[in-house]
Formats: sequence, C-alpha cells, structure tokens
Amino acid sequence: VNEGKTKANKPVIVLVRPQLGQNIGKAARAMLNFGLAEMRLVAPRDGWPNPDAGPAASGADIVLEKAEVFDTVADAIADCSQVFASTVRRRDLVMPVLGPEAMADQIAGSGERSAILFGPERSGLETEDVALANAIVTVPINPEFASLNLAQAVILLAYEWSRRSDLAQPPAKDLEPIAPHREIEGLLGQLNEELHSKGYFHPPSRTQATKNTIRTIFTKTGWSSREVKAVRGIIRALVDPPRKRP
Amino acid sequence: VNEGKTKANKPVIVLVRPQLGQNIGKAARAMLNFGLAEMRLVAPRDGWPNPDAGPAASGADIVLEKAEVFDTVADAIADCSQVFASTVRRRDLVMPVLGPEAMADQIAGSGERSAILFGPERSGLETEDVALANAIVTVPINPEFASLNLAQAVILLAYEWSRRSDLAQPPAKDLEPIAPHREIEGLLGQLNEELHSKGYFHPPSRTQATKNTIRTIFTKTGWSSREVKAVRGIIRALVDPPRKRP
Repeated sequence: VNEGKTKANKPVIVLVRPQLGQNIGKAARAMLNFGLAEMRLVAPRDGWPNPDAGPAASGADIVLEKAEVFDTVADAIADCSQVFASTVRRRDLVMPVLGPEAMADQIAGSGERSAILFGPERSGLETEDVALANAIVTVPINPEFASLNLAQAVILLAYEWSRRSDLAQPPAKDLEPIAPHREIEGLLGQLNEELHSKGYFHPPSRTQATKNTIRTIFTKTGWSSREVKAVRGIIRALVDPPRKRP
Repeated sequence: VNEGKTKANKPVIVLVRPQLGQNIGKAARAMLNFGLAEMRLVAPRDGWPNPDAGPAASGADIVLEKAEVFDTVADAIADCSQVFASTVRRRDLVMPVLGPEAMADQIAGSGERSAILFGPERSGLETEDVALANAIVTVPINPEFASLNLAQAVILLAYEWSRRSDLAQPPAKDLEPIAPHREIEGLLGQLNEELHSKGYFHPPSRTQATKNTIRTIFTKTGWSSREVKAVRGIIRALVDPPRKRP
C-alpha cells in the first residue's frame, strides 16, 4: 500500500491510555482500511497484548502485532515532528485548532514524521497530553449530537489523510464514452419516422415544436453508442409485430 | 445543525435488508453525528423495531423512532431523484462510479431529494438494487484491506456530505427538476410490459440482465416529469395502431 510514499507521510496513530482491547482492535481495522499501519499505545489500561483486540480487528492483525507500547505520550511521539491532538476544542489551551482537512494538508505537505493522538474512550485526552501537540484537530460534528467513538474518530482522520495520499485517487472512470452526436441523430431519424407513420405528429403546425422537444429529450441522456443501439432495438421491437418464440 | 438547509439537501440513508439490529443502531449514531436523521429500512431481516438497535445508537434514538420500513428498494426511493449505491465497483453494470466527494457535490448541487443505499452487512447490495441507482459511490480504500463495516461506510459518506452542506448552491432555477424515481419506475413498467408482449425478452435466462440494462439506460437520463410523460406517450404511440387523421 502506498509504496511510493515515505514513512514520513503516514501519520503514527497514538492511542493514549486506551481502555478496551476491543476498541484498540477496531481502531487498527479503521487505520488499515486507509493504509495506516503504525499504531502506538500509551499505557493501555489492561496491558498489552490484549486478547479482545484481535477479534475486533477483523483481520488487521498486522497492525496489532507491530503495535508498540510506551509509558508516556512524550516517549511515544519522541521521533515525531508534527503532533495533532484529536479532541473537542480545548478552551484551556491556546493552540491552533484545525479541521481534518487542514491536518491532512499539514501532514502531506511536510517531510517530517507526524502523529495523531487519541484519548481514552471515556474522558478523552488530558490537558497535559494535548499540550504536547502542535495543534488540536477537531472533526466538525453535529453540536447537538457529538458522539464519535474512538474507532470512528480514527477512521475519519485516516480517511482524510488518505484523500491526500495515493489512495485518494478517485476510482478510475471506466465509463463508456457518450455516443457521438450523429448516433443520436440516427436514433431521432428512426424515431421520428416511426412516429410519423403512426400519425403521432398532429396538428401539423405543432410538428416542428414536438420534434424539438423529442430532440432535447434524447440529446440530454448521455447514452453511449451501445446504449443508443439498445434503444434503437427497443424502438424496433415496439413497432414490429410480436415475435413468435418456439 | 444546518438549520438553513432544506430537507432536500439531506440525503436519506436507506439500509437494504440489514441483518443485525445493532448495526442499524450504529448506523443511526453515525448519521446523527453529521446531522442526518432520515433513515429508511428495506425488509430488515429481523423485523422492526429491533430491540438491539437502541442500545447501539448511543442516544440517536430519534433516528430510529422516525425510521420508515419499506418492502422494496423501489418503494424506499420513490420520492428521490438522485440515488447513490454504496458498494465496491460493479463490473456487471455500466454506471457512473463516484468517490464520496463527487457524490457530496452532486447532492449539494441539486435541489432534489437524494438517497444513499447501503446493502446487507454480509453480502452488500445485489445487482438489482444497484440498478435502481443513478450512480455507484465507492470509498477509495486500501485495496489490500478493504474491510469497511456498515456504520463506517455510513459515517464516511455522512461526513463527506456534511463537509459540502454549507457550500450547497441553490439549483439553477431554469432547469426542470429531475423526475422522482417512481416516475422512472412507471416508465420502465410500461416499457417492459410492452416489450414482453412483443417477445423481446429472449432467451428467458437473459431477461433479468436485459431488464437491468434497460433500467440503467432510462435511469441515467435525468429526465424531468414532463419528459418522462412525453416518452411514455411516445412508447404508447409506437405500439398503438396508426391513428387515422382527418
């Protein structure tokens, strides 16, 4: 994944005093979905390894196996130049508050190692943890229902990071090209001829206006050559006598 | 949240044949975190209401209480003009494939009702479900570890929607709105019936695939209600005997 990227482009995910092994597993899964594999744990409550983590990781075992454990946040981010604290905005600290996009821009635009800190499930990061960061990152959320769990916070920031990385390429457009206009003209010629023979254009004074309407309807479709052919087959089937099938 | 927004700007979240009540609850929580409150359920496996949904919703009960249940996907999206099918890329359908951003742009840029379809946890959307949509939306994910669960898929698309919601432009006034999906269904019903009576669907083993193709062709047109009516008149004229004109 992202082989062209240096390690520096991929932020380290630091879970600070995580409580449930299950949530560590879910965070690992969220990370790996967007190509992040480096997890660090600061003083996990129930020790490490934790048997509840693996099943919740749904196959992201590699992240758990490589997870490193540290005693303090300072130790965990010692090699990181840019540190973002994921939290609701803290009024008790004077620090830049970024949205996920701005955070992703800063990670992508730097050649330095980055880390994102996530606090314990119940209480979030302490002031002392946040103070170690260069900036706070806050997901703009419904103020009347702000209920992001740990794995959701991780996946949203990992997703936002990935949008700036190679993973973020929009899916290849293997759409069929729109048919050249002459094919729409061919369809309109066939359709108008059939409609004429059915006596559809009436009264004669309205014929041109009706044809213009039909032209607009079929020109706006964005059909491919294959689809134009299919519609021409449908028109033929509608006017032909029923086919006898064996 | 987004109080200035009309209902039309907020996509309806449609869970198609969801299996676990817990996942319905988690999806509700994910929605409400980003201000989406309208959930529709198509044939939930264990019926509705489901006692497992509430605890997993972590307080997003309002979403569950207002959730509506439908028998079919077509019923659930009958009033929606733009329908996005959340799925991995489908090779068996020729349909636009959008990333989350492009989807959010289309929802924000339209004055029409939008819906996003999510499939059952285990299997995802069936081809017949996807064929009802105007486009596929795919989250670009680590190809070596693509393990998004339902609530994660919902939260990522809800988040992406919320990022655009403030930018929503009022739709151009001179364009006719796209017809609600039920009108396309009406057209397809009429067309398929006529084609059946003409013996068009042959061999029987190909009938469903051919109908899916026809559905895609007519769903992508972006026709207004007036245009759908006009096309239905054209179909009628093509199959009727010629009218005698004075």
